[in-house]
Amino acid sequence: MNWEHIDECARKWLKEAGVRIRETFEQQLTVQMKSNRKDLVTNVDKETEQFFIERIKETFPEHRVLGEEGFGDDVGALDGVVWIIDPIDGTMNFIHQQRNFAISIGVFHDGIGQLGYIYDVVHDELYYAQKGKGAFLNGRPLPRLQPVEISEAIISLNTTWVIENARIDPSVLAPLVKAVRGTRSYGSAALEMAYVATGRLDAYITMRLSPWDFAGGLVIVEEVGGIVTNVYGEPLQLLGQNSVLVAKPGLHEQIVTKYIRK
Amino acid sequence: MNWEHIDECARKWLKEAGVRIRETFEQQLTVQMKSNRKDLVTNVDKETEQFFIERIKETFPEHRVLGEEGFGDDVGALDGVVWIIDPIDGTMNFIHQQRNFAISIGVFHDGIGQLGYIYDVVHDELYYAQKGKGAFLNGRPLPRLQPVEISEAIISLNTTWVIENARIDPSVLAPLVKAVRGTRSYGSAALEMAYVATGRLDAYITMRLSPWDFAGGLVIVEEVGGIVTNVYGEPLQLLGQNSVLVAKPGLHEQIVTKYIRK
Repeated sequence: MNWEHIDECARKWLKEAGVRIRETFEQQLTVQMKSNRKDLVTNVDKETEQFFIERIKETFPEHRVLGEEGFGDDVGALDGVVWIIDPIDGTMNFIHQQRNFAISIGVFHDGIGQLGYIYDVVHDELYYAQKGKGAFLNGRPLPRLQPVEISEAIISLNTTWVIENARIDPSVLAPLVKAVRGTRSYGSAALEMAYVATGRLDAYITMRLSPWDFAGGLVIVEEVGGIVTNVYGEPLQLLGQNSVLVAKPGLHEQIVTKYIRK
Repeated sequence: MNWEHIDECARKWLKEAGVRIRETFEQQLTVQMKSNRKDLVTNVDKETEQFFIERIKETFPEHRVLGEEGFGDDVGALDGVVWIIDPIDGTMNFIHQQRNFAISIGVFHDGIGQLGYIYDVVHDELYYAQKGKGAFLNGRPLPRLQPVEISEAIISLNTTWVIENARIDPSVLAPLVKAVRGTRSYGSAALEMAYVATGRLDAYITMRLSPWDFAGGLVIVEEVGGIVTNVYGEPLQLLGQNSVLVAKPGLHEQIVTKYIRK
């Protein structure tokens, strides 16, 4: 597999898609609800996904695409090369803030992440990694993640998961909130994973993500020595929804054993 | 009072301070704890406050300064001109992230906010307002805030306030979290106020801030029609700690009457 060629194309298309997205800031968005009133999609999400699919199919006709907006293939198994794409991760931020969203792409081969991209369009910050070759932010190598004490950790965790909700007893994570130095919440899983990869966050926890939310980040975070699993410490399923815990190595184990499984 | 001259000086000093702060990114920080393990200060916080105080005292010897790091005056009353300064709002972000922090300045005259500045140093975004003359981001006027339904609102609220804490029963704000479209938390009161002023957030709620955290934001948010009070809807005390609720007009009333005082 010519990963260098695939990488070159992916970057070129990311920059092109970024330009198109920035141009839409001056236009009126069409916003629709998907599964529920907090699950939104815009014409820009859809057009961006179609932009990538057209280019991938043209250049790599044998590759398949799993995309959030459903314009790709019906991917039932991960054999061969599969691009897992979220055209706009953080759609709510895109609509309300015109910032704090990203394009996320993971390119997998027989189920193994080979290339990962998270492109913060507004700040023109491209986080990327190739398996075994390190992770980078706009060309600068990201250093390996260093251990951190839980009392000095900043973790990203939405308020949803410490009040009554359908996925986790709020009393499980509340003690973790008290133990850490601080919590944040940015509303884009891809950016939150990029922030763990760069050390701006020490961990990111959420109770439900789809593969396109974490596929790009998975490759990048693992490449700097971070750990990506579900909150119980088990491997993520790439073809379904998962809880997700992304953290520095020692911190990951502490969160799983002292707080979640205790 | 020559507010134009004061404004001109404030902007010049903010840009100069920003350059100095950016230069420190390559250096080793000295981090100390203040009141508790989550309350941090660095040499850069201190040096930046001293930078402003020197210039203010030199140029406006009759003005007084109330600064977070305590290098200013012992301000017991708000007569005359008082600069209320947070040299780095979001010190924890400054240390961990080298972003998501801001310099915050409010210039008050006999207790009335006349000038407000929030400078996002890393993104070179200066939010500012002069009372009665509108609010601006890097020279572009900020439009007046429009009403929003609570179900479509994004509010900034830290997880701390929906778990057991010393300041508010967690059951008070949990129903609000369920009612809104989403919650975020950025870890800098000044930036969170700037985000309300620009419409990126619809409200910001926190249970304890000092005057230097909100003095600049107060002038900016009020200038675009936003409301700034404590969480019970009462005016903020400028010489003590307060809970703070910053929101669009209709939303502010709904949060106070339907959730906090209900």
